[in-house]
Amino acid sequence: MTKPLKLHEDRLFPSQPKVRDIARALYAEIADLPIISPHGHTDPSWFARNEPFGNATELLLQPDHYLFRMLYSQGIALEDLGIGGHDADPRAAWRILAENYHLFRATPSRIWLDWVFSEVFGIDVRLDGETADFYYDTITDALQTDAYRPRTLFERYGIEVLATTESPLDTLEHHLDINESDWDGRVITAYRPDPVVDPDFEGFANNLKKFSELTGEDTATWAGYLAAHRKRRAFFKEVGATSTDHGHPTAATANLTFSEAEKLFDKVRNGAGSAEDAELFRAQMLTEMAAMSLDDGLVMQIHPGSFRNHNRQLFERFGRDKGADIPMRTDYVHALQPLLDRFGNEADLSIILFTLDESSYARELAPLAGHYPCLKLGPAWWFHDSPEGMRRFRSMTTETAGFYNTVGFNDDTRAFLSIPARHDVARRIDCGFLAQLVAEHRLEEDEAFEVARELAYGLAKKAYRL
Amino acid sequence: MTKPLKLHEDRLFPSQPKVRDIARALYAEIADLPIISPHGHTDPSWFARNEPFGNATELLLQPDHYLFRMLYSQGIALEDLGIGGHDADPRAAWRILAENYHLFRATPSRIWLDWVFSEVFGIDVRLDGETADFYYDTITDALQTDAYRPRTLFERYGIEVLATTESPLDTLEHHLDINESDWDGRVITAYRPDPVVDPDFEGFANNLKKFSELTGEDTATWAGYLAAHRKRRAFFKEVGATSTDHGHPTAATANLTFSEAEKLFDKVRNGAGSAEDAELFRAQMLTEMAAMSLDDGLVMQIHPGSFRNHNRQLFERFGRDKGADIPMRTDYVHALQPLLDRFGNEADLSIILFTLDESSYARELAPLAGHYPCLKLGPAWWFHDSPEGMRRFRSMTTETAGFYNTVGFNDDTRAFLSIPARHDVARRIDCGFLAQLVAEHRLEEDEAFEVARELAYGLAKKAYRL
Amino acid sequence: MTKPLKLHEDRLFPSQPKVRDIARALYAEIADLPIISPHGHTDPSWFARNEPFGNATELLLQPDHYLFRMLYSQGIALEDLGIGGHDADPRAAWRILAENYHLFRATPSRIWLDWVFSEVFGIDVRLDGETADFYYDTITDALQTDAYRPRTLFERYGIEVLATTESPLDTLEHHLDINESDWDGRVITAYRPDPVVDPDFEGFANNLKKFSELTGEDTATWAGYLAAHRKRRAFFKEVGATSTDHGHPTAATANLTFSEAEKLFDKVRNGAGSAEDAELFRAQMLTEMAAMSLDDGLVMQIHPGSFRNHNRQLFERFGRDKGADIPMRTDYVHALQPLLDRFGNEADLSIILFTLDESSYARELAPLAGHYPCLKLGPAWWFHDSPEGMRRFRSMTTETAGFYNTVGFNDDTRAFLSIPARHDVARRIDCGFLAQLVAEHRLEEDEAFEVARELAYGLAKKAYRL
Repeated sequence: MTKPLKLHEDRLFPSQPKVRDIARALYAEIADLPIISPHGHTDPSWFARNEPFGNATELLLQPDHYLFRMLYSQGIALEDLGIGGHDADPRAAWRILAENYHLFRATPSRIWLDWVFSEVFGIDVRLDGETADFYYDTITDALQTDAYRPRTLFERYGIEVLATTESPLDTLEHHLDINESDWDGRVITAYRPDPVVDPDFEGFANNLKKFSELTGEDTATWAGYLAAHRKRRAFFKEVGATSTDHGHPTAATANLTFSEAEKLFDKVRNGAGSAEDAELFRAQMLTEMAAMSLDDGLVMQIHPGSFRNHNRQLFERFGRDKGADIPMRTDYVHALQPLLDRFGNEADLSIILFTLDESSYARELAPLAGHYPCLKLGPAWWFHDSPEGMRRFRSMTTETAGFYNTVGFNDDTRAFLSIPARHDVARRIDCGFLAQLVAEHRLEEDEAFEVARELAYGLAKKAYRL
Repeated sequence: MTKPLKLHEDRLFPSQPKVRDIARALYAEIADLPIISPHGHTDPSWFARNEPFGNATELLLQPDHYLFRMLYSQGIALEDLGIGGHDADPRAAWRILAENYHLFRATPSRIWLDWVFSEVFGIDVRLDGETADFYYDTITDALQTDAYRPRTLFERYGIEVLATTESPLDTLEHHLDINESDWDGRVITAYRPDPVVDPDFEGFANNLKKFSELTGEDTATWAGYLAAHRKRRAFFKEVGATSTDHGHPTAATANLTFSEAEKLFDKVRNGAGSAEDAELFRAQMLTEMAAMSLDDGLVMQIHPGSFRNHNRQLFERFGRDKGADIPMRTDYVHALQPLLDRFGNEADLSIILFTLDESSYARELAPLAGHYPCLKLGPAWWFHDSPEGMRRFRSMTTETAGFYNTVGFNDDTRAFLSIPARHDVARRIDCGFLAQLVAEHRLEEDEAFEVARELAYGLAKKAYRL
Repeated sequence: MTKPLKLHEDRLFPSQPKVRDIARALYAEIADLPIISPHGHTDPSWFARNEPFGNATELLLQPDHYLFRMLYSQGIALEDLGIGGHDADPRAAWRILAENYHLFRATPSRIWLDWVFSEVFGIDVRLDGETADFYYDTITDALQTDAYRPRTLFERYGIEVLATTESPLDTLEHHLDINESDWDGRVITAYRPDPVVDPDFEGFANNLKKFSELTGEDTATWAGYLAAHRKRRAFFKEVGATSTDHGHPTAATANLTFSEAEKLFDKVRNGAGSAEDAELFRAQMLTEMAAMSLDDGLVMQIHPGSFRNHNRQLFERFGRDKGADIPMRTDYVHALQPLLDRFGNEADLSIILFTLDESSYARELAPLAGHYPCLKLGPAWWFHDSPEGMRRFRSMTTETAGFYNTVGFNDDTRAFLSIPARHDVARRIDCGFLAQLVAEHRLEEDEAFEVARELAYGLAKKAYRL
């Protein structure tokens, strides 16, 4: 027998009746605000070309490492899901997901997917082995219709602005196409220079060559390399970018002299650097990027602390982003000091810090953001972008950093269809948090309404200079 | 005036009426499921000999380091409690516990003991200085009756299987006796090789000699030493073991070549190794044990992160396990990589990870278990095996690892009488956690019933291959 | 339009009606207990001279780094607030605070200030840009009246004892004046030797000279230096001190021989020491201080883990204590071992441990305090002295350390006017925590009343030997 699927209107609110009532009232005021998505990983070609998405498996399962990592953890082969270019029958792959959907109980993936199934496709039965084919057909058929084309969904979702993330080596052709088209959706890019900044990145030496070709600068010299960044940042900004993004293993920053940096660059450029040299180079580059941000006004995001590709066998067989990135303990207080020594007191600089190490919320990040004018706190990230994770974020940062040193919500996703679901979770959790404060007489109700609007909309817009 | 002792039927459930009602309903369905105790430290001779337990102090106070550590922390001498072979009047020792019972307010020891007093001995007044003698006599008298013999309690408690933990040097005579007896209680062992694996263990060199005698292998060579393990594991398995257990200071693993390992073994065997050599040897042995587990199917448990015998004076005077083991910060993401590099993708291998460092739950352990097929998460352990500790475990692991990468509950205790109390706490806390999810519309009620049964019974049975 | 300011009688209690009722009942019993303030940073000259406090800005804003750090984090110049000796119109500075008061939503500063505004000054409108002048005048005018002189407020606040914190170089003239006066308020000092113990302290060499002059001991020798401490501690004790306080970067302790310590002292005394030498010297001095405490009975407080003056530019321009101290990850289990090796089992020694690293609560501090007779846990400190911070403290320490290895509340503040507000927050949060335990049947109601009184009054008095 199939089970019903119905999203409850009070989902994710605190369950205590009086607090829930306050949360409902707050949510009612902000539920329909436009979506600001200032950081994420959707594919700009979707909006440039506006072609139909493929089938259910191609759209919802294969690009979503949250889903296949969990399936893999239970012994399911990635090949059977068609991951990493392996051929698999998409319907059969979908059935595997359906039969194992219980694995996602109480995970955010379940919340996001159920929202997509119910709100986007109007499905009202629960996903399981029995309903697998019905789901597959319903979704795949819908995707062929105009109502499910990327731009239509973008508009239906009430997205005011959506940022993607590109390497400096990207031509931004899709963003340029969108800008030149008669469609007025705002899809912007962000400058993510890891491929030309991280000596450990696959193909680093080759990337530097392309970087030179694209910019006309001599990236074999430190001065030319920096000039290439400046040029490329200017181009990204011209096309619409308001931010940069940096995904380093740690939050280390450095403050070398020009000649020290020059020597270090020579070493890592030639592949002659040690692991320590690579780390120092990335560290120095965060400081260089901050210097450029102070000039060009791009907001800087630092996303440190992921041990990428932890599963070496899997990496060799399937490549990166296969659900095998594992968070590490991350220090900020020492790591950021060299950068802060130079630029910490610049009120015009804006650096948004993220973490995968929740122990740093109350200990380091909230105290840093509650003092330095240039620092802000990004929202709960990745593994922590979940109801409990967001609650921990608020309860561990607010008392020291306040609400106004945070920057609203980032969905940070490549799963376009679930973007409104993710913002909805954040809005509900924030309203619940505020409702609890009101119920404990720690915040007045009129203030809670003001803050709710800021968390859902205003802070992101301001922090990302949108 | 004596105060009443009465266990409340709603104890440990969330206090909000609607949530409590859901918790009650879930609990009603699973409260009477048999107890699976897949990891613990009870004494198998109790069940082999089935002799009466001694007096109240001997049974309940002297072996329980949770109790005497707290008394010691308040300046009470261990000698006065008869710890470490010191002579003390057991009734006087019991009185000290009784007079200081307020120290245990809001600790799990209080919950477990009150359950034992009320449910096992039918006592209905609270323990304090005034009721100390009444308690001592009631308990001590009852213990002389047949109804309180080990096997009778085992059956009364509804224990389906109970695992103890033995060194490879143990003859397993008691397990053999139980197997050969006409009693059909299932008491199995687990292979805990620390005394012959950890070069820092008391008497390591001598232990290796005994290991050789027991197995007929030449434990002076690396190959012989490994063969001895293989033989002894086979023997343990034959007698009933389904798991091994490893209590190292850290979670470090290594992946040396045979000849590197051989050289290292020579060093540590002769006592010529440094602290780093000892650590590397333990690390290599975790990988060797994983290799053997892949062959013989024994489930592997890793219990790292305790700084054993932190109080050196106390250790010299009273020996190990005297309440002076203190948790340390524990890294998993780097430490486990060498082992995972070799065996991480083996779906037939099962490694259950424990931690005393809660900051690793959401940061490292849930992401690792939510990806690697060979990894599962053990329940909240030791200091964290408590109502708040278990709640933190669920709220910090579920969203990333789900429920199905966890393994149910371990009581991990030598306090036999409290085993049902400990499982009852876990069941109540899990039902409360599920009820909260249902009340917030994050899980459907029919799913919560299914999960509750898995957490109380099914997952432990499956994970430990029982 | 102005908004009302009214403290709700149920503020900070759990919002669930039944739990709130229990919290109310508990609170009613302890709300009016005298205030024990065993550790803080108020200025003893206030009580010695009993002169009127200055204006609103001088009293409430300029000394409070919680306030101006938050304003600074949002780009407001410290000069405009009159910080660090800069001239600023106090009324204009107050207006900046008022206009930015929304930044403090859901922070403890807001709770403390609102209490001061409402309870001390009888203000019933909310602080904002519109009411800024009204606030400034009301407060400044009141401060000129006798009802707002330091001693009158001290009595009105029901303070039984208030401890300040002084350097060994302090003459304690104000404490002596108070002792000799006919006023019977108890204002005592605490011995905080950082300026003569920490080789990295500003003016260390010069401080040692003054230390010699004050004590008549030759502080150029290790023996003389120790003798100077002993003399000065005796003097502090004579004047009223019952405790010492140590604010080191880490919790490191050491256990050097006399001659090793002598050599080390020679190095650091001459400024010839490395960073490691300075760290080792501080570490050794904690052990020396413990030895002296065992002799003279002064209770020892360790406040480690703050990276002081993290913002170097700000430090150079404005000096220390300007809101730029950032917590660091802090180890206790290894750091304290050398000291505990020598003195850990001394039941007459009392060392109170604090932390800024909440990950150590359940992992290290509660297990240490739940075992060693000499250790107790100080309350949630600094950034964590807040409703959520206190709840985390209780929920992460109680199950392992119990209530009786904690020491009640410390306000640890220089903001004299808010002292009762801070104790009130602690009392309310503790009553809420106890109420939750009662509501979940984890503690009996009669016990909760007993514990509430201990947490609010008894434990602090006993732990600090007052």
